[in-house]
Amino acid sequence: MLDQVVNLAAVTILGVLEQAYFSLKVIYARRKYSVSPPSTTGPPEFERVFRAQVNCSEYFPLFIVILWVTGVFFSQAAASFCGLLYLWARFMYFRGYSESAHGRLAPLYLSGKVLWVLIGLSALGVLNSMGQVYLRLDALQYLSGILTG
Amino acid sequence: MLDQVVNLAAVTILGVLEQAYFSLKVIYARRKYSVSPPSTTGPPEFERVFRAQVNCSEYFPLFIVILWVTGVFFSQAAASFCGLLYLWARFMYFRGYSESAHGRLAPLYLSGKVLWVLIGLSALGVLNSMGQVYLRLDALQYLSGILTG
Amino acid sequence: MLDQVVNLAAVTILGVLEQAYFSLKVIYARRKYSVSPPSTTGPPEFERVFRAQVNCSEYFPLFIVILWVTGVFFSQAAASFCGLLYLWARFMYFRGYSESAHGRLAPLYLSGKVLWVLIGLSALGVLNSMGQVYLRLDALQYLSGILTG
Repeated sequence: MLDQVVNLAAVTILGVLEQAYFSLKVIYARRKYSVSPPSTTGPPEFERVFRAQVNCSEYFPLFIVILWVTGVFFSQAAASFCGLLYLWARFMYFRGYSESAHGRLAPLYLSGKVLWVLIGLSALGVLNSMGQVYLRLDALQYLSGILTG
Repeated sequence: MLDQVVNLAAVTILGVLEQAYFSLKVIYARRKYSVSPPSTTGPPEFERVFRAQVNCSEYFPLFIVILWVTGVFFSQAAASFCGLLYLWARFMYFRGYSESAHGRLAPLYLSGKVLWVLIGLSALGVLNSMGQVYLRLDALQYLSGILTG
Repeated sequence: MLDQVVNLAAVTILGVLEQAYFSLKVIYARRKYSVSPPSTTGPPEFERVFRAQVNCSEYFPLFIVILWVTGVFFSQAAASFCGLLYLWARFMYFRGYSESAHGRLAPLYLSGKVLWVLIGLSALGVLNSMGQVYLRLDALQYLSGILTG
């Protein structure tokens, strides 16, 4: 049974490692720009790194939750692929935002698009499961039956 | 097996959609009140929308986690019902807070109460499972046996 | 099957209760130092309590996610033990930070170390499962076979 979620678990660990990396970057930025906790304001260079990390942290639970629902109810392979793409987009976002407020935009839009794809796939998977449970229908199997003749 | 969690998954997707809606509202407020990232301070109208979204984001992981523990260890139906109520309360909270700091209070208290109900039900369910595993007792079945004569 | 995750669920509920306790502490600090929402700045005494809660909230999803991956793919007992240690370290962190910025450091480092242990154990467990699924190897069983002769 664990083989049906092992790739999701691997993507999850990568996601946690990425968040740990972002947190370390904020600690370095605090030292470099002499912004001691609890303060969170300082030069724009510090604030961009700080806000990049906060934004990634804010989206992390949404990402993990929708990754797993997609992986369990739709397809582990599709979810894992989107998951890796999302983590890569977030890495580029963090790097871009650290350099300039404008640099965050392109990868932010990419990460947003990947999230919407995951939301769409998870909704498909869950609606299909609800159809099976409550209406005894299996729309996804029916469709793939049509497609494969 | 998935039928035992499919409603939890559906509530989870609704929760993710709600958070996405709140994030879009912050983006619109940033434009309307000309507050460019990484800044998070501005007129009170912007700060209320911003704080409403931050507060909902902060509670989202607690909500999802306790929703699933309740759904798996106590009852999927009870958890899903409380989950929908929580999401509705959070929607009213966001709307109320956007209008005035006072407007956030009533739905905030409601969302808090729903969370406490979920915490209580999840604790009941988990304690019952621990009793089964470690003491070979089944308190919930025993109680329902008494209640149904 | 639930007996394989019931301790993880119990640690999770404790974690949610701890976060609820931190949130209440912020509400009390808002009243004590007269900092009304949506404002989040005020005397350092308030800002330390506020930042302590924000930091714990930020790490909570990482903690829960890595707790469950470790518990499911490596060992429920090891994950639950690390989980309790983490929650204790976070409690000491919150108390220490409330008193002084310096007081947060020792428990923060402890909580960080526990997280790294969990990340390491989860990676071991997931890599082992991937070996089983994709290479038909079972490294952990092989190692324990060597160790027990």
